[in-house]
Amino acid sequence: MTPPTRRKALHALVATAATAALAPVARAAAPLAGGSGLGVHRMKLGTFEVTTLLDGFIELPQAVLQGNPEVIQRALDAGRVIMPIRTAVNCFLVNTGSKLVMIDCGGAKMLGPTAGRMPQALAAAGLELGQVDEVYITHMHGDHLHGAVAPEGAKLFPNAVLRIAKADVDYWGSPAVEAAAPENQKGRFVAAKRAMAAYGDRLQPFELGAELVPGIRSVPAVGHTPGHSCYLVSSGNARLLLLGDTMHVGPVQFARPEITVMFDFSQDQARARRQELFEMAVKDDLLVGAVHLPFPGIGKLRTRDGGGYTYEPIAWQMY
Amino acid sequence: MTPPTRRKALHALVATAATAALAPVARAAAPLAGGSGLGVHRMKLGTFEVTTLLDGFIELPQAVLQGNPEVIQRALDAGRVIMPIRTAVNCFLVNTGSKLVMIDCGGAKMLGPTAGRMPQALAAAGLELGQVDEVYITHMHGDHLHGAVAPEGAKLFPNAVLRIAKADVDYWGSPAVEAAAPENQKGRFVAAKRAMAAYGDRLQPFELGAELVPGIRSVPAVGHTPGHSCYLVSSGNARLLLLGDTMHVGPVQFARPEITVMFDFSQDQARARRQELFEMAVKDDLLVGAVHLPFPGIGKLRTRDGGGYTYEPIAWQMY
Repeated sequence: MTPPTRRKALHALVATAATAALAPVARAAAPLAGGSGLGVHRMKLGTFEVTTLLDGFIELPQAVLQGNPEVIQRALDAGRVIMPIRTAVNCFLVNTGSKLVMIDCGGAKMLGPTAGRMPQALAAAGLELGQVDEVYITHMHGDHLHGAVAPEGAKLFPNAVLRIAKADVDYWGSPAVEAAAPENQKGRFVAAKRAMAAYGDRLQPFELGAELVPGIRSVPAVGHTPGHSCYLVSSGNARLLLLGDTMHVGPVQFARPEITVMFDFSQDQARARRQELFEMAVKDDLLVGAVHLPFPGIGKLRTRDGGGYTYEPIAWQMY
Repeated sequence: MTPPTRRKALHALVATAATAALAPVARAAAPLAGGSGLGVHRMKLGTFEVTTLLDGFIELPQAVLQGNPEVIQRALDAGRVIMPIRTAVNCFLVNTGSKLVMIDCGGAKMLGPTAGRMPQALAAAGLELGQVDEVYITHMHGDHLHGAVAPEGAKLFPNAVLRIAKADVDYWGSPAVEAAAPENQKGRFVAAKRAMAAYGDRLQPFELGAELVPGIRSVPAVGHTPGHSCYLVSSGNARLLLLGDTMHVGPVQFARPEITVMFDFSQDQARARRQELFEMAVKDDLLVGAVHLPFPGIGKLRTRDGGGYTYEPIAWQMY
């Protein structure tokens, strides 16, 4: 049981978070609420619980998509994608029963006002930042990593270790790599520098493929970045493959997995790994989850008539 | 602005609702939360706001589906529907800027423990029961109407008028009809009797097709019940057709709209009206919403290759 004082503090947190996001709609001719709700979705995965926290959204121009322009346009049309492409930013919180693990942290307010709600969603889920034991990042891009750091630069999760694949830390944390980057790319190193400064020796790099806690294993997905890691979450027969940035624009990249994005470090590796991982998800009938899937960002992939895949979101879970 | 005392009361409500549903997950080897979150989703519709509140779910046996058994089985298989068929129960709250209107109310606890969360979801959305001005019911079945009445039999919304099509009130409120019903069907009249007792002269029947407030109009859909009413919610060019019980099992009835359910009062009328309304939704490019669609229960219908329709849920709205 939660002690009364702690519970009171939680109530206050939840009240603040929920009312901030969903202001009361007063009766009869009163102002509209003006603002959509927080996204919190919880499901069971074997004996684990997986909670998706919606950080917000970012918008992408069509030009991020790389490949045959006609193929891209047809997929955009078929998917009725409106420009700019609005893509969700999800964070996945896994409670294994012994560890509370946050996988990717959203973009904080570093990417503009449309993201950065993860802390409010966490509070609305009845949790405190200090309860998070481990934070796993798929790769060191800002929309996944900025959220691990508080605005003033301290670590957001006071008790957590931060775990990122060594290959990504070596790349994004390298002054030599940053120095060699074109001037207009140097901003992409900010998230890594802030996170490394905030967590210090609480940042513990891992080898791609390692088991990080019982039931959560890194799945190598080098290509989008030099150390891009997916995560396989397993409890009994229930398995969820968190795909990281294996996909950005579902209606295009599920139907035509050969289409890449300009953020991919290696277009060839990213393309090949996407196809392998999608095929594995279908073959092994895995649940998949991804940061840039529509909230709550969990579903199944199926092979599509005519090639490629379709994505079927799960129904809202209630148990 | 909300006065401080009112705001405090709202905070308490929200805190209670949110923590009741999402108990805190304590750190390290502490118990899991055990229970999924409340469903609250808010979107803009023109200048209106539409909030879906998830009441819960109910389970249906395959036998509720009426039609060619092979067609039904193929559609169930194609949709990978698991038995019993779990179907969401959504309620739709429309704020027109001058009226706060609840459309369908869920099943309270009259249908078992898996529904009846609408009041908690309303509180989590920052609203009080007394703020609801009008309650519209699509038809007087328990999973839509029981939720309008408190457990002890009082009206749940103290300041609301309850509006239901006259043809449904005449049917479900008729002692003669009830007396003539088979013994095992008499339980289906309980919801109507409780609601009529609770609301008294605050129950104001309407003629099918009437405009109830500016921007919300009844759309006749007789067939599922004698006075089944859909609702068209319009603000500027934005339009949402709330389909009531025009569908129960999406994977079957979108693909094969000729399949009916045993709850349909007139299978022929229900079938014909479903086909007309689905066709209208496609032709007029309307948003559709339904009580038994997966939460948040709003999307678009498209014609399907090979006949019938497909349903595309909207992405989680953020604004």
